Amino acid sequence: MKNLLVAQSGGPTAAINATLYGVIKAATENNVNKIYGAKFGIKGVLNEDLIDLKERLNGEIKLLKQTPASILGSCRFKLKNLDSEEEYKKILHIFRKYDIKYFIYIGGNDSMDTASKIAEYFKLKNVKDIFVIGAPKTIDNDIEKTDHCPGFGSAAKFVATIFSELERDCSVYNVKAVTLVETMGRDAGWLTAASCLSRVNGFDGPSLIYLCEKEFSEEKFLTDIEEKLKEKNSVLVALSEGLKTKNGQHILENLQKENKKDMFGHKQNAGVAKHLEEVVRENIGCKVRSVELNTPQRAAAHIASKTDILEASIVGEKAVEFALKEKTNVMVTILRKEAENYEVDYSFTEIKNVANRVKKIPEEFISETGTNLTKKAVSYLKPLIKGEPQIKFKNGIPLFVKIF
Amino acid sequence: MKNLLVAQSGGPTAAINATLYGVIKAATENNVNKIYGAKFGIKGVLNEDLIDLKERLNGEIKLLKQTPASILGSCRFKLKNLDSEEEYKKILHIFRKYDIKYFIYIGGNDSMDTASKIAEYFKLKNVKDIFVIGAPKTIDNDIEKTDHCPGFGSAAKFVATIFSELERDCSVYNVKAVTLVETMGRDAGWLTAASCLSRVNGFDGPSLIYLCEKEFSEEKFLTDIEEKLKEKNSVLVALSEGLKTKNGQHILENLQKENKKDMFGHKQNAGVAKHLEEVVRENIGCKVRSVELNTPQRAAAHIASKTDILEASIVGEKAVEFALKEKTNVMVTILRKEAENYEVDYSFTEIKNVANRVKKIPEEFISETGTNLTKKAVSYLKPLIKGEPQIKFKNGIPLFVKIF
Repeated sequence: MKNLLVAQSGGPTAAINATLYGVIKAATENNVNKIYGAKFGIKGVLNEDLIDLKERLNGEIKLLKQTPASILGSCRFKLKNLDSEEEYKKILHIFRKYDIKYFIYIGGNDSMDTASKIAEYFKLKNVKDIFVIGAPKTIDNDIEKTDHCPGFGSAAKFVATIFSELERDCSVYNVKAVTLVETMGRDAGWLTAASCLSRVNGFDGPSLIYLCEKEFSEEKFLTDIEEKLKEKNSVLVALSEGLKTKNGQHILENLQKENKKDMFGHKQNAGVAKHLEEVVRENIGCKVRSVELNTPQRAAAHIASKTDILEASIVGEKAVEFALKEKTNVMVTILRKEAENYEVDYSFTEIKNVANRVKKIPEEFISETGTNLTKKAVSYLKPLIKGEPQIKFKNGIPLFVKIF
Repeated sequence: MKNLLVAQSGGPTAAINATLYGVIKAATENNVNKIYGAKFGIKGVLNEDLIDLKERLNGEIKLLKQTPASILGSCRFKLKNLDSEEEYKKILHIFRKYDIKYFIYIGGNDSMDTASKIAEYFKLKNVKDIFVIGAPKTIDNDIEKTDHCPGFGSAAKFVATIFSELERDCSVYNVKAVTLVETMGRDAGWLTAASCLSRVNGFDGPSLIYLCEKEFSEEKFLTDIEEKLKEKNSVLVALSEGLKTKNGQHILENLQKENKKDMFGHKQNAGVAKHLEEVVRENIGCKVRSVELNTPQRAAAHIASKTDILEASIVGEKAVEFALKEKTNVMVTILRKEAENYEVDYSFTEIKNVANRVKKIPEEFISETGTNLTKKAVSYLKPLIKGEPQIKFKNGIPLFVKIF
């Protein structure tokens, strides 16, 4: 048997190391000789910065499933086009030097572009004995051809849980108040949509949900809030970080051009929630607060979804399985079965079908008002956050593993 | 037996309903007749807005221990001084009308002022058959005469856990980067200090910790960061929201006076982390990001400390015990025993010793550099976040109870 190389790329998630776990597990069970990890994504290959994973993880491999962020390190690095051969030559050289037969790249849309380019280069050069497989991961859930993406379920569970807690927190005073909560997702509103899952046990959840898929109007936003304030004291609002105006421009883009500096003389860098907090304060005048959920959304392994962690690790196993079957230039996909209870199958798709694309929330998932999700959306989202893994704690905090 | 009235006041916490649980449990076991809850703190008494808690919570009382935020509602309401009798007359009238013999007020420094004033009024009027007990709660841990405060341990566990996850998240790219994380606490830096607990299992945690107890200098802050950047790629920094300059002014106060509006023409309302993010960007120029942990710190019941929840509920029981022993104008306290392993006792102190005061972090807890905690501080903090309660989940999110 020859060797396997695995690397992680793009933004970290709470489940990306679960996929690595699945890769190591399947590769070990299938008697792959050496399992190498490249440090900091494809840059680790280019820098010949590889480590022996079986040696390094001795005994602690199960902790991978509860350790957030890319344990191998990550990068945001775009390979040049194929007509610029240098990087690809180097990669092929390293693969040959370490006798790599299987290369698994765990990442999002951009990382799939990297995997695909390498596979295409090999094809171009008639290299037929190295197999390149993509394993999807992203909290944004925006990869095509897969029902959903490993990493999303855990981030969605964090968002739903925090919204359910904030809904309680916001409702303690009997005064009119607006709370604006910004979630990640510049191009697709899936995580913002997950805020609606805070309602699954009968609580109100967010009163309004603004997705980046829908055109955002400040005027309508203010009217919506005023209407809700007539019905109840505490209005909780979910906002996509990527909210756009009619012409597809980010809502802060023009403002940033007009006023380059903020009060401190700094270039402005605030988020949509902070901006809209001031809009509400000035136009409605009630108590208003903004919360940006920020990077904890992708890092909060302590509230991971059991379903997500399990699926993420199976995706890793399937990546090895497809590699051993000598597939190449494909990405593992999760397919949802047509069944009463949630069940999935695993398959693959050619990477060219997914690289550099963005899967947005479909129209049928968004209510007519544009500020809520449909039942269909809830049915889609609900199973993804189900189940709580048994997290091991030590000294009051979750136990993680690291390899460098 | 006569009746008991309980209310919650001030900012919510993840443990304040555990104290309510303890009150109801002990009152029931001791055959108190009716247990009333006042809605929205003392305002519920003034508005005669009382509910029968045993009836309302039928069967679901245990869920109180995992439900964040004040289930009875809260208020920020300061009673007038005693020479202005109207409010106190009204309160006494309501107490008589509902046959209240025991009044338990769960709250922080300001709420203790309310409880104390009521008790003093009763003394002044020679009312000897109503007993007023304060039960402490605050995520800020800044109440005097108690080793620590219910609510703090859970908030500290959230902060420590998120820092441990963010430390992993920040370290994935091999580029120089600074991550600034702002925690709550305007007057005392206890929650900022809790970030150091992210190191208990051998990980780096924050490289620098800026507490509001220490004078903050932007110049020193930049030098500190530059020094740390020489040692490592990813510098994680914990910041108190209440950072002050040499003269005791909040670090944003002057800036806010000088420049009343931000780039959007809004009155500036950003936090210290966002401000210092721009300071780092302009002066050091490396990758920099700010995260404001915000209200999830006080609401994150899903990662509550088992120690905290247990103690919070015992504090509620003790409040009833002391009321039944006809103590008045006292607050329940937690005393730490001099023992090898963490053990506590419960006692009480006159409320006048605690009301309107602030317990800051003592000098001996702060390192000489001013940007770290001492071993003594870690020994103090570590037991408070210990243990994980068995949270009940349903449909993927924690199960809460509400009564209105």
